[in-house]
Amino acid sequence: MQNTNQVLIYGKHAAEAALDNPRRKIFRIFCLRENAALFAGKGVDGKICVVDKKELEKMLPREAVHQGVAVTAETLPTLTAEELCAVTRQRENARVLALDQVTDPQNVGAIIRSAAAFGADALMVQDKNAPQESGAMLKAAAGTFELLPICRVPNLSRALEKLKKEGFWVIGTDGHARTEPADMPKKGKLAVVMGSEGKGLRRLVEETCDLTVRLPINPKVESLNVSAAAAIVLYELKK
Amino acid sequence: MQNTNQVLIYGKHAAEAALDNPRRKIFRIFCLRENAALFAGKGVDGKICVVDKKELEKMLPREAVHQGVAVTAETLPTLTAEELCAVTRQRENARVLALDQVTDPQNVGAIIRSAAAFGADALMVQDKNAPQESGAMLKAAAGTFELLPICRVPNLSRALEKLKKEGFWVIGTDGHARTEPADMPKKGKLAVVMGSEGKGLRRLVEETCDLTVRLPINPKVESLNVSAAAAIVLYELKK
Repeated sequence: MQNTNQVLIYGKHAAEAALDNPRRKIFRIFCLRENAALFAGKGVDGKICVVDKKELEKMLPREAVHQGVAVTAETLPTLTAEELCAVTRQRENARVLALDQVTDPQNVGAIIRSAAAFGADALMVQDKNAPQESGAMLKAAAGTFELLPICRVPNLSRALEKLKKEGFWVIGTDGHARTEPADMPKKGKLAVVMGSEGKGLRRLVEETCDLTVRLPINPKVESLNVSAAAAIVLYELKK
Repeated sequence: MQNTNQVLIYGKHAAEAALDNPRRKIFRIFCLRENAALFAGKGVDGKICVVDKKELEKMLPREAVHQGVAVTAETLPTLTAEELCAVTRQRENARVLALDQVTDPQNVGAIIRSAAAFGADALMVQDKNAPQESGAMLKAAAGTFELLPICRVPNLSRALEKLKKEGFWVIGTDGHARTEPADMPKKGKLAVVMGSEGKGLRRLVEETCDLTVRLPINPKVESLNVSAAAAIVLYELKK
């Protein structure tokens, strides 16, 4: 069903945001009759296909919370590290969030939502250990996937080195660090890298960081959920 | 399968934490052969039942990430508002997080994890609009459900009034408020109430608040995920 360049978007928020994004090519809109009005006046009349609940659910992953809407669309283009450097060159307070081996699409979608909410310039991931754009990711991002550029790179530590040459400070999160997020630098270009829960940052990625910070959590609790930790770090960076 | 007082816990973290909790009555442990060693020395040998993957999956909700372990156990007792008042009476910096109509068990579990991580004294919910203790909630809480007392009350605004009589300041979150979380009071007994995404706080609950705060998000983004917002508020309260 899904080509490499095609994504099946579901849920009202995610679908409406995709339709409102002029950079998003829409192929077809499948919806229940009562939802057809959602798409009126958006210039997509010829693409609407009214289906019943059973047909819709057959198209979608099991237990997908579709709210009566599914849209087939082209995936969005991603940025290379060089393009991200070019885009952020004139932004003196550019903010980039990078993820190292965060593989759960729902976590990545939730992180995109927080990154868009706190005005990050882009999310950077390493191509082969990050999930591709997917319906589950877009659903968790609740429409914000359309707002946040994603930079996919072949090698995360090398891409972070490129950002450093552009004047970025690179900050990692690590349970053993001594600095707290409140004490992070708040001015200039900043990139924060977060590792997956449990595994943390890979050695080379950590060695690339100018500074590491830790969230001040209760020692009885092993870790925060990565999307909760990302929300806090993004919030601190925005201050 | 599930009595009112019985919960089916799955996932290694959640199951191990339940076994390590002396207040948790364990009925039976179902696990794959390779996981039986996890439970050695915990005094539960007579309760272990080795099963194969198919049997295990038949017991569990579809797509449950079980990691080869499921445990049937008694649900934990919850606190009344009066008990919570008694427990926190001597804690001059008591912190309570209250949820108004947050219904998704995964969100509630994720919030419990952040609340435990930032040392909250309890989570308060209104009994009839909050999910019951469940496997999905405990999985999202990643073992921390065993650490955080849950206070279930018949009426949230009345329970918050009781906390106020005990000297708590009650802070609500609201997209239209002018105060930011960084400017919340940080001393004394504090309770923060969060509403569900979209719906926010109910009128009576909001009227009970001494102060409302808003997270400083990009106006293009409607809201944060409630568990991301809770993580930020809990982090600020800890400072």
